[in-house]
Amino acid sequence: MIAGELNPTPRFLMGPGPSDAHPRVLRAMATPLIGHLDPQFIEVMNETRAMLQEIMRTENEMTFAVSAPGSAGMETCLINLLEPGDEALICVNGVFGNRMADIVERCGAKLVRVDAPWGEIIEPAQVRAALGTCRPRLVAIVHGETSTGVCQPLEEIGRLTHEAGALFLVDAVTSLAGVDVRVDDWGIDALYSGTQKCLSAPPGMSPITLSPRAMKVVTGRKTKVQSWFLDLNLVASYVTGGAKRSYHHTAPISNAFALREALRLVLEEGIEARFERHRRIHGLLRDGLEELGFEFVVKTEHRLPQLNAVRLPAGLDDATARRRLLEEFNIEVGAGLGDFAGKVWRIGLMGCSCTENHVNMLLAALRRIMAQA
Amino acid sequence: MIAGELNPTPRFLMGPGPSDAHPRVLRAMATPLIGHLDPQFIEVMNETRAMLQEIMRTENEMTFAVSAPGSAGMETCLINLLEPGDEALICVNGVFGNRMADIVERCGAKLVRVDAPWGEIIEPAQVRAALGTCRPRLVAIVHGETSTGVCQPLEEIGRLTHEAGALFLVDAVTSLAGVDVRVDDWGIDALYSGTQKCLSAPPGMSPITLSPRAMKVVTGRKTKVQSWFLDLNLVASYVTGGAKRSYHHTAPISNAFALREALRLVLEEGIEARFERHRRIHGLLRDGLEELGFEFVVKTEHRLPQLNAVRLPAGLDDATARRRLLEEFNIEVGAGLGDFAGKVWRIGLMGCSCTENHVNMLLAALRRIMAQA
Repeated sequence: MIAGELNPTPRFLMGPGPSDAHPRVLRAMATPLIGHLDPQFIEVMNETRAMLQEIMRTENEMTFAVSAPGSAGMETCLINLLEPGDEALICVNGVFGNRMADIVERCGAKLVRVDAPWGEIIEPAQVRAALGTCRPRLVAIVHGETSTGVCQPLEEIGRLTHEAGALFLVDAVTSLAGVDVRVDDWGIDALYSGTQKCLSAPPGMSPITLSPRAMKVVTGRKTKVQSWFLDLNLVASYVTGGAKRSYHHTAPISNAFALREALRLVLEEGIEARFERHRRIHGLLRDGLEELGFEFVVKTEHRLPQLNAVRLPAGLDDATARRRLLEEFNIEVGAGLGDFAGKVWRIGLMGCSCTENHVNMLLAALRRIMAQA
Repeated sequence: MIAGELNPTPRFLMGPGPSDAHPRVLRAMATPLIGHLDPQFIEVMNETRAMLQEIMRTENEMTFAVSAPGSAGMETCLINLLEPGDEALICVNGVFGNRMADIVERCGAKLVRVDAPWGEIIEPAQVRAALGTCRPRLVAIVHGETSTGVCQPLEEIGRLTHEAGALFLVDAVTSLAGVDVRVDDWGIDALYSGTQKCLSAPPGMSPITLSPRAMKVVTGRKTKVQSWFLDLNLVASYVTGGAKRSYHHTAPISNAFALREALRLVLEEGIEARFERHRRIHGLLRDGLEELGFEFVVKTEHRLPQLNAVRLPAGLDDATARRRLLEEFNIEVGAGLGDFAGKVWRIGLMGCSCTENHVNMLLAALRRIMAQA
């Protein structure tokens, strides 16, 4: 069997990621390959680090893109910082907090959970109380919970974490480049993100950063990291340092080209202007959705502008309406996960998918579908 | 800092991978994104599986591309098949056998090594002897050792492995689509490859296949796989089955498009014709290199046509000559690893980099450099 010509119908990506990629980013993907040890590629890695540092607001030397999607960035941070027997305090108020908790147990570390209902933030008082009962190596929390649309305030929890002598680990997969992320100011010791959300590059890499304090834990481990591929003690010889890089694995060259182009676009727009755009377009979507009878899951002050979790109005069937949006209008929105399945949609306004035109198309399509329902 | 326009000087990739990608594959990389749960993407995954099955010569249902480079494919196979306390017999005659041994230890499994000198094959008698001293869960071996250019005969070792009740795991990163790989005929229970070698797609994915017997071990585990990202019990819900796929991680959409296009090109050429091309072009390179005083590391009958490990002639300085090839001729060849560093080159003739023109360019450039040395 030889498959036919690749010919997917183009979509407007308004789900939880991937988002639409800019034509310049797609063009970068098609750049002829160079080797992963070519001095030209080392330069690409250096430029990417410098731009990531600016967008993450950090001076961490250990800032690079893991050669796999965001879930691998999550795993990289946890398995490098935790050793068997360590305690880890994980804040869980959605799918991705749960995923961190799962990985902690696979590390042979002792899991301490702080839970909040889906759609609500983790309160600093909960973390303070939990820190009275354990001595964790790290406290981990999700900044932008992709399953619920919550934007978690970080500063106070970061302060409590440091007072307890722990490292502060943050999931910024959905938040980075959509809302402010200040790694150094907020005392974040390790942070991972994804390329396919507000950076609007194709999926396949996970930008991460680790503070010198976190790297000291990594280099001072008593046991080997359980993954060879994601062992930062080995990866460091390739991703940091000067011209003398040594081979670890073969980096995804094209994805690195695309990420570099996507970071250029973020900085050309300006970080603050980008946040303002996400807030403004979110406002338009919010007004339109509420008019149609959708209700936001998250209360106003804790909403991510780029990930809108909304309960469906009565009478609108989840599967039918999403199928019609996709098939008739080529618009993708995200289904609800877990308890939200069938009841909640996750509408993304991320990076290049965050435009007034996207909002207008979606609202008009919904009006049509709801009129016919 | 905003980096300048992406503008790498194009190269001719004649190292150990990545190889040159076909323009159709690069164009596929630039296809606008669709979602990882879009029915159109599920179809891409199904078509990819069907084409991989044909190229790997297998009917294994569990055939897909891991969302990360070849090293992650290696890790996926080992960590899913091994549990703490299991024995694993690993054949080591180069860098990649060593890497497997390293991962086995990170699994908490008991490593039994069979070693051969770099540049030589593992003899079946060695495996038979080792199997008399242990009861391994699996026997693992590298089909095409990228560090030495050895093509390892597999059939007899596969038979011995099955007689001992073990699973047979094969590294086909460099061999697949360059020389024959017969998963079902040779009794291979698990095999991983890479996209950036003889398939000539960009790096970033690792095609793998597991037999029903191997999957029974995976689904029957007593302990959780140490990686969440690479846990086949979780990944299976996304990569196999019908239209009802459930979310695990976000697949690298563009890389999947590119791999699909690369597989089409392999099948359009025909597998046997492709092997014949690799053999024929290898012959031209061999004759030319020997005329220039290069000596092959591996004896004739065990050479991979697509990865030529050759000792440098006296008087030719490794670093200088490779730098001149890259800077003056835009030709990349691979340095020697380990004991071969400074003495051996690895010249790749993989997929789209395997043409008479590539050979002619390289030989002419070498003649020029050696005349001036």
